[in-house]
Amino acid sequence: MNAGTAGRHSLVLGEEIVGRINQLGAISETVEHLARVFLTNEHRAAAELILSWMREAGMRAHLDAIGNVCGRYEGTSPNLPCLMLGSHYDTVRDAGKWDGPLGVITAIACVAELNRRGKRLPFAIEITGFADEEGVRFASTLLGSRAIAGTFDERVLDARDRDGISMREALTNFGLDPDHVGRAARTRRELLAYLELHIEQGPVLEAQNLAVGVVTAIAGATRMAARLTGMAGHAGTVPMAHRRDALAGAAECITAIEELCRSDEGGLVGTVGSIHARPGATNVIPGQVSFTIDIRAPTDAHRKRAVADIVRRIEAIAGRRTLALQLDVTHENSTVPCAPWLKSQVAAAIAAEAFAVFELPSGAGHDGMAIVDIADVAMIFVRCRGGISHHPDEHVELADADAGARVLLRVIENFRPRG
Amino acid sequence: MNAGTAGRHSLVLGEEIVGRINQLGAISETVEHLARVFLTNEHRAAAELILSWMREAGMRAHLDAIGNVCGRYEGTSPNLPCLMLGSHYDTVRDAGKWDGPLGVITAIACVAELNRRGKRLPFAIEITGFADEEGVRFASTLLGSRAIAGTFDERVLDARDRDGISMREALTNFGLDPDHVGRAARTRRELLAYLELHIEQGPVLEAQNLAVGVVTAIAGATRMAARLTGMAGHAGTVPMAHRRDALAGAAECITAIEELCRSDEGGLVGTVGSIHARPGATNVIPGQVSFTIDIRAPTDAHRKRAVADIVRRIEAIAGRRTLALQLDVTHENSTVPCAPWLKSQVAAAIAAEAFAVFELPSGAGHDGMAIVDIADVAMIFVRCRGGISHHPDEHVELADADAGARVLLRVIENFRPRG
Repeated sequence: MNAGTAGRHSLVLGEEIVGRINQLGAISETVEHLARVFLTNEHRAAAELILSWMREAGMRAHLDAIGNVCGRYEGTSPNLPCLMLGSHYDTVRDAGKWDGPLGVITAIACVAELNRRGKRLPFAIEITGFADEEGVRFASTLLGSRAIAGTFDERVLDARDRDGISMREALTNFGLDPDHVGRAARTRRELLAYLELHIEQGPVLEAQNLAVGVVTAIAGATRMAARLTGMAGHAGTVPMAHRRDALAGAAECITAIEELCRSDEGGLVGTVGSIHARPGATNVIPGQVSFTIDIRAPTDAHRKRAVADIVRRIEAIAGRRTLALQLDVTHENSTVPCAPWLKSQVAAAIAAEAFAVFELPSGAGHDGMAIVDIADVAMIFVRCRGGISHHPDEHVELADADAGARVLLRVIENFRPRG
Repeated sequence: MNAGTAGRHSLVLGEEIVGRINQLGAISETVEHLARVFLTNEHRAAAELILSWMREAGMRAHLDAIGNVCGRYEGTSPNLPCLMLGSHYDTVRDAGKWDGPLGVITAIACVAELNRRGKRLPFAIEITGFADEEGVRFASTLLGSRAIAGTFDERVLDARDRDGISMREALTNFGLDPDHVGRAARTRRELLAYLELHIEQGPVLEAQNLAVGVVTAIAGATRMAARLTGMAGHAGTVPMAHRRDALAGAAECITAIEELCRSDEGGLVGTVGSIHARPGATNVIPGQVSFTIDIRAPTDAHRKRAVADIVRRIEAIAGRRTLALQLDVTHENSTVPCAPWLKSQVAAAIAAEAFAVFELPSGAGHDGMAIVDIADVAMIFVRCRGGISHHPDEHVELADADAGARVLLRVIENFRPRG
């Protein structure tokens, strides 16, 4: 098969995927800004559409107890354990169309291709479209995959959305029973592995000029909330030497975090995404500043060393400036390494599709972080334009969507359970 | 007179002043947070109280066309030109009791003392309590003193407060005629000089261990609005080297402004009081940050050099980080020097009261910035605790209030018009 033929062949899968990405992307709270949030009418409409695609691909499909869409394509005999594929179909607000849906739609396209060929494998294939990964509505992420993994925290049922509706009420209104979320849980025996295809959401593959990559690990993250308290004062009357300017202190902390991460060669990233200065008037020295810190690294040890270093630097800055410091860890999750045996099957498929095999960590969180409690996980990344995600400009080229599908299909066809 | 006698004597004025500061400070929109804003019921109540004190001090007193309280104590013959004393009696929100009222109340205490002694001077004394210096309600400052100086901008009549009420409507509701604001204007011939006593609103006198100081100039100010635009991105997926983080850029700018001002030995101050990062989420690299810059220096030339230097530094930071920069001057006013002939009379009075003569600039704006258009101006600063102002903790010791009154009284008694 020459390159020209490969190109034409591949576009069949890619075209179907892009068409469906657009169909699903049209299901949104508002026309201008894509938003598809847990337990809404848009959630239901998207679920119905995905269920129909699953059935069309020869799968049995149903909505589970938390609102995940679950499809099953039997193997050569019934009741075999499954290779689970999947991703999420909820979105952030003002989202792109690809983050999540690409993994669900590509998996369905692969099964549909097997089904067209009448091909059955010595294991079942299941596809899960997770109902809530982003955590937009109830400020708690990975709800769908945690329910599948049996680690759903029942206390989250009492969380309320911005309209004051509790998750319990929202589940009931959706037609689900909040007391039966546990029924969504699967067991380790049922799963041979979990494999997720997802857009990179970063610029690394683009810089490498590669359509796809092998994920080494889903990076853990530590999030902190920092608050520096100095003394507010008149911008005109307090000499520089007398100031205890909380914003000048915060600026020094932000610079220190950036410096530390920039000088690291092991993939450490640090972000101050949110900042609030009080009182916040042009002519008043800020007396108090709050800001957030998000630190990620490919390994837990690396991240923890960096966090300790950042805490020390911030403490030193606050001490030198006589600012009071409140520094709290608000969120922490460990790195989830991709299983070497599964990763090597992904790498083999990429090589067989004549792409260079390139490994990279995932800085973003993914449903595999929850599923790892019941199965080994691996991920395939697909290049996205400019590394842009969580933004309407999020974009994947048709050829890359197709490349991802060919790789995934090859992994499925050649899949060997862990020996 | 020994120190003990002086101490006992002085407290007579100081006690009256502190008593009245508390009386006036009780006139507030809410009990917990002092707020006395232009053309409100509290404005009227405060005006009535001040008018009563003026009359009690032997002055003729009236409310003028913009709501200033105006008192006149005739000299040895009628219709003499006047030495004008004054300050403002409006407040910011959640204010202290001293900023403004101290100057009005102290001036009245001095005239009352002259009146008790039956003393007339070869010039009249006028006291003006300016109705709006802070500009809280209509976001335009020095309204009272501009009306007196004949520089009131009629366009401000169309400005609206946060409830949508225009100044024109507010004046009418208050019983004033918006078409007659011009009648508040005074002429240069009527004024021999303008002298204002005010709290320092900074920590310099406290650090010098001095109750009072001579103001050299009311510092000019340049205010700028800066906006840096980079590229938002996922906090986990964009490597440090690929980032165009607008907040990291802003932090470097804030540090550069602080460094420049700290290394200056001529009284330059620079403040970033307000900052907003968008989108402002913990896990998103800020794509755009807006912040304000406030720069003041004792001379215009000094301030302009500093502003040019800061602009250059910010441009360099933005350029190096490939951030788009929008930088606008939103406000600029020139330094108002205190008149040397008048300043030397203040210094002489301070020395005669056995205090060290200490000169300092005013970093804050004051009504003299408007009155300078019709008279030479000077100011006396009174120490305030911790340099704190625009805050409920604003405080002046009774002995310092008394010291200010003794100095002011001595300036009045020894006043000689410009030769």
